[in-house]
Amino acid sequence: MLTGKNIIANTVSGEGKVYHAINPASGGELQTGFHEATQEETDKAIALASVAFGEYRNKSAAEKANFLQAIGDEIIALGDDLIRRCMEETGLPEARLTGERGRTVNQLKHFANLLLEGSWVNARIDTAEPDRKPLPRPDIRSMLKPLGPVGVFGASNFPLAFSVAGGDTASALAAGCTVVFKAHPAHPGTCELVGTAIQRAVHKTGMPAGTFSMLHGKSTAVGMAIVKHPSITAIGFTGSFRGGKAIFDEANKRSRPIPVYAEMGSTNPVFILPGALKERMEAIAQDLAASVTLGAGQFCTNPGMVFVQRSAEEEKFSTTLSNRITESNAGTMLTPDMLANYKKGVERLQQSRGVQLAATGKNGASGQASANLLKTSVSAFLSDHSLEEEVFGPSTLAVLANDKSELLNAVEKLGGHLTATLHATDDDLKEYTDLIEKLEQKVGRLIINGYPTGVEVCHAMVHGGPYPSTTDSRTTSVGSSAITRFTRPVCYQNFPDALLPDALKHQNPLGILRFVNGGWKKE
Amino acid sequence: MLTGKNIIANTVSGEGKVYHAINPASGGELQTGFHEATQEETDKAIALASVAFGEYRNKSAAEKANFLQAIGDEIIALGDDLIRRCMEETGLPEARLTGERGRTVNQLKHFANLLLEGSWVNARIDTAEPDRKPLPRPDIRSMLKPLGPVGVFGASNFPLAFSVAGGDTASALAAGCTVVFKAHPAHPGTCELVGTAIQRAVHKTGMPAGTFSMLHGKSTAVGMAIVKHPSITAIGFTGSFRGGKAIFDEANKRSRPIPVYAEMGSTNPVFILPGALKERMEAIAQDLAASVTLGAGQFCTNPGMVFVQRSAEEEKFSTTLSNRITESNAGTMLTPDMLANYKKGVERLQQSRGVQLAATGKNGASGQASANLLKTSVSAFLSDHSLEEEVFGPSTLAVLANDKSELLNAVEKLGGHLTATLHATDDDLKEYTDLIEKLEQKVGRLIINGYPTGVEVCHAMVHGGPYPSTTDSRTTSVGSSAITRFTRPVCYQNFPDALLPDALKHQNPLGILRFVNGGWKKE
Repeated sequence: MLTGKNIIANTVSGEGKVYHAINPASGGELQTGFHEATQEETDKAIALASVAFGEYRNKSAAEKANFLQAIGDEIIALGDDLIRRCMEETGLPEARLTGERGRTVNQLKHFANLLLEGSWVNARIDTAEPDRKPLPRPDIRSMLKPLGPVGVFGASNFPLAFSVAGGDTASALAAGCTVVFKAHPAHPGTCELVGTAIQRAVHKTGMPAGTFSMLHGKSTAVGMAIVKHPSITAIGFTGSFRGGKAIFDEANKRSRPIPVYAEMGSTNPVFILPGALKERMEAIAQDLAASVTLGAGQFCTNPGMVFVQRSAEEEKFSTTLSNRITESNAGTMLTPDMLANYKKGVERLQQSRGVQLAATGKNGASGQASANLLKTSVSAFLSDHSLEEEVFGPSTLAVLANDKSELLNAVEKLGGHLTATLHATDDDLKEYTDLIEKLEQKVGRLIINGYPTGVEVCHAMVHGGPYPSTTDSRTTSVGSSAITRFTRPVCYQNFPDALLPDALKHQNPLGILRFVNGGWKKE
Repeated sequence: MLTGKNIIANTVSGEGKVYHAINPASGGELQTGFHEATQEETDKAIALASVAFGEYRNKSAAEKANFLQAIGDEIIALGDDLIRRCMEETGLPEARLTGERGRTVNQLKHFANLLLEGSWVNARIDTAEPDRKPLPRPDIRSMLKPLGPVGVFGASNFPLAFSVAGGDTASALAAGCTVVFKAHPAHPGTCELVGTAIQRAVHKTGMPAGTFSMLHGKSTAVGMAIVKHPSITAIGFTGSFRGGKAIFDEANKRSRPIPVYAEMGSTNPVFILPGALKERMEAIAQDLAASVTLGAGQFCTNPGMVFVQRSAEEEKFSTTLSNRITESNAGTMLTPDMLANYKKGVERLQQSRGVQLAATGKNGASGQASANLLKTSVSAFLSDHSLEEEVFGPSTLAVLANDKSELLNAVEKLGGHLTATLHATDDDLKEYTDLIEKLEQKVGRLIINGYPTGVEVCHAMVHGGPYPSTTDSRTTSVGSSAITRFTRPVCYQNFPDALLPDALKHQNPLGILRFVNGGWKKE
């Protein structure tokens, strides 16, 4: 059923060398050889994306919304074949993948609705003042416009929701950009299925053929060829720090540098404050262990550091957390490499001075990772910056502070993270406003009495954060605000009404909210 | 009256070596030696900006607005001393500088009003759905928050409106960032006067002392020390491509890269379409010559390229334009170096194959630049990419096209510019929609039947554009949208109301417009 070919606009092509996907549970090769894109195929896909952009950028909001909905419909129409292949390629369970498919389709709908609402274009109008002294003021209007063809890299840990038709593709297409997608070599069959679904949606809704292409590649060469191509205007990426940083550096070396939105993960510190510890130590230990081991810990928001102050309650908490981790089942990791890296990461932590292994979860089958709890002190933490680096998988590092001031000192030294979480009573929150204040300067999302895993797709979500969690803290990769990442403002001075984009026309034919002469208006 | 010292929060300091400003009209040194900031002084200013940020970021919109207004008041209170010193340092005439002072104060007011209106923070609220299946939705809210201490570099060509208290400083302070300003060595006395005005405003309005500091430096060392400092979180810059690119590269080499907003100028192509040429050739030639020579051509939006199609009218137009340029007076350039570079730039253009000097304006006194009109064909233009590079000063290059398709071909090859301008009749506009469509993808601002010089400070302005006109096309350096450059979104999940920022509190105490559950609300 699978062809193993690259999707180049409305055709497929497979000229390059072949690789196979690996079943991470068995370690065996899966059916169908996938052709790495050649430089010619890459150039062709991007040239067609450039041509298509000239037409696609002018599609109406309704047309683009219809297209996004159609992608969702085509994904659903793939039926169980998609889930089956995805399970084989990723080791993720069926329930998780059907849930993730729902999320993927919902993301597309979310952006479709945003387009239909229409105000996201940030229409601004300052009308002419012909009689102003000393000089007349011309009519000036501006709105967001799409950047151009965008290169998107899929994430291994969300083979549907952050892959071919995932968040970055959806937001780029919604913004009016065409997309050249780099398929993830860990789930190329899943990519092909979803890629052909998009290809069908392009055809059925009358979008220009080059609106979407998808290129396979196991090495980094294909991805880097996309990043370097002069017609590519922005990059969306979710993955490792190493991968994201390499793309960021390459993009800045171009003769025309381009924005890179690389979400590179983080360690997502959790703080358990004294009152909460006293009040519900058991429940927190239980839920935290569940959050650490959820999906074999393979989330960007996995809580990889837990800060607690030493006390009698802390000792009980640590014991309970150790027990929960010890009891936890092993989970299949997405790829054999990731499992190897996870083991190396836990090893690295253990070898740092002052870090002890406190608990290890149950052993699993081949390809599975056991959970790990490690433990250290703030002083040891501060003397080894690498302890803050993400270990991708089901482990967490408990960092014990002697007192509040030591805790604040540790926070002061933290780098950028996607999230920070506090478990706190009302009294704790009153007493720890300085902690919250400091954390707000370190992360994209603050959570009180919850868990960082589970990133809601909504308008207010910020899935991003200061470097090194991302290369650009000014945006989000989840939620409707992501659409602005692939746009820039364009200003129209003294334009006749007929020539203005509909969003800026005098009569406001789209009925969107606009900032007119300093006030918000829907008329 | 001037001290020549660096402004470090609420003190002054002058430990480094001394340089003098040059009067560009006479070439002579002006009074007062200015002390280049030492590394210690730079570190101290930035450390104090970091400390102050912790407090300043939490000042209310009203407090920050009051502070911005106070800066304006203190600048006005400097009286004629400011204008006099600025004239000596820049060679700009009194009327221009009093006008620019007014613009500077208005910019500060513009941002103060934006703060008082309050909706710019992009407040987004998705309320909890505790009964949602399969999982409850938590309460999620987000808004823009300031990045941290910002380094701002002043421009030589706007010694007031894009210098110490200029657009970048105003937008960064409005956003809630503290500012470390790098004084421009071409007008250090002007910088000191305005810097002390800000220092007084900080004191009078009770802002933390480190909210603003200003460092002198003639070499690039002081500026680069600011860019490299780990506590600096963003850079605002207006100046040359060489300077902006060097800062951009350095900022990306940091262990924690930071955003750089460098406005590096452009050549601002002007297109005179056949109908307009027929209708009002004389008037266009006249006004274009005035725009080219305005302020000795020292504007980022100076029209440095004029595209016209060959015809009998074009010949008349070229003759008239030549005559207007020949009659134009020389103007004093901002610095002797700029004058030398202007002469070199015109020389460079003339030496390119197929470029002829068509007219030269009147000779002036020492320090003054004569206007120049150069002429070439599209084919010659396309064979030498350097013809598109900015020559800062009162010159323009007429590029003659044989027909429309040659014109479109030239536009296809254009790099990024701040503006593009069309002179067109209604019929022209109908016939040239493809030209407008292409230009929209190359520039930040499109102007019909006007001139690019004169950048209105308003809500809809976009003063920015694709690389190489700026390092970040996603923003503007003029107008109220500039405030978002120094911010990032922060998300609050499951926060008790009392702990939320006012902009996100349930009752909307600020009465701002917010995006609540997918709809705009002011309640």
